[in-house]
Amino acid sequence: MRIDILTLFPMMFYNVINSSMMNIAQQKDIVDIRVTNIRNFTYDKHHKVDEKPYGGGPGMLMKPEPIFRAVESIWHPPDIKPLLILLSPQGEVFDQHLAKKLSEERHLIMICGHYEGVDERVRQGLSPKEISVGDYVLTGGELPAMIITDAVTRLLPGALGGKDSTHLESFQSNLLEYPQYTKPEVWRDMKVPDILKSGHHKKICEWQHQQAKLRTQKRRPDLLKQNKKVEHDESS
Amino acid sequence: MRIDILTLFPMMFYNVINSSMMNIAQQKDIVDIRVTNIRNFTYDKHHKVDEKPYGGGPGMLMKPEPIFRAVESIWHPPDIKPLLILLSPQGEVFDQHLAKKLSEERHLIMICGHYEGVDERVRQGLSPKEISVGDYVLTGGELPAMIITDAVTRLLPGALGGKDSTHLESFQSNLLEYPQYTKPEVWRDMKVPDILKSGHHKKICEWQHQQAKLRTQKRRPDLLKQNKKVEHDESS
Repeated sequence: MRIDILTLFPMMFYNVINSSMMNIAQQKDIVDIRVTNIRNFTYDKHHKVDEKPYGGGPGMLMKPEPIFRAVESIWHPPDIKPLLILLSPQGEVFDQHLAKKLSEERHLIMICGHYEGVDERVRQGLSPKEISVGDYVLTGGELPAMIITDAVTRLLPGALGGKDSTHLESFQSNLLEYPQYTKPEVWRDMKVPDILKSGHHKKICEWQHQQAKLRTQKRRPDLLKQNKKVEHDESS
Repeated sequence: MRIDILTLFPMMFYNVINSSMMNIAQQKDIVDIRVTNIRNFTYDKHHKVDEKPYGGGPGMLMKPEPIFRAVESIWHPPDIKPLLILLSPQGEVFDQHLAKKLSEERHLIMICGHYEGVDERVRQGLSPKEISVGDYVLTGGELPAMIITDAVTRLLPGALGGKDSTHLESFQSNLLEYPQYTKPEVWRDMKVPDILKSGHHKKICEWQHQQAKLRTQKRRPDLLKQNKKVEHDESS
């Protein structure tokens, strides 16, 4: 998969995409992540990327031309159109199901808005899919682009290296994760539960599933409702 | 405000917290962001931070000792306890209201889990507030810690530099933002709406409010319901 990120702050990405899982996935050629500076596509003397909004209002808005040109430096029609994404608080809320869908694409181009946002003609003319990573206000689309790159890359075959880690994780089954313990066996008087040291594989699985359900019931009952909905949909 | 971030990947943070708004806020002494490597608090020869989970299961779990020690390197009882946060898919879902609440704290310590998660005794012994930035699976708590640092810092007085930008933004009023336009007046046959060039301040405001409502109705009707709820609560 190829992921292009268009941003005014390319430096923000370097240590992030070159650490941990994203770094390994790139080394293994599972994903090709490229970061492009939108400012390189300004043709005026001062490399101006933003201007005041028409009609007044605080802050600066990103101009349309450099964004169009940056996209067109990557996608040349009539080539197959990559999935164009605009990170925006006004978009569809990102979740694990959407991550799965995006992981089946061949090529993503993500546009990071910054300052007060982007000129509306980016939406009109480029028709990007708008995605929001949550109901909070951020300074730009850079952190959301990192979130999506991480969540999508780790779903690509081989990214987690043979381990079937993704199967048991939160949100894959709409259950939160059960409590987990590692060494030491006792830490400041807190002990690893006996059941986990019993070696009874079946009993351990039962305990973990029960704990996951209890925790989900207590903290995120909304997820259990979604589960029922899925079961219902599948049986109907 | 002081924000401490405890992580196994401190490098990921440097270009992020030293760019754009977070950089300016630090330069102005509005926020003091410090990143600590949890690995520095391992006392064994190999600096081991993770081990296999008891009871089996894939992947590695973060050991409790280095995390406890890292927290205790920052907070020394009987000093006032900072708000301890564990970034975790099992936490309360982060939103703008929670960002506002956190921005009123004096000192946050955020613990970034990585790999399969942290030993349960971190929850038992340190009682952190658990926060999730959305219903998706990430490789670690690093990106969520950046998200919270950004969302909280920009709410601190002075961070956005006199501009009252925060007031009009998405989620502050439970309305998505209205379309905005900047120069050029025409870009590839797409024009700035006449109303925005009219100079009629009142009419422009009405148009913007109407557009914001329309967009919210179409894309996120759930936010309008929250508005009604707030109005109802306030009038009851």
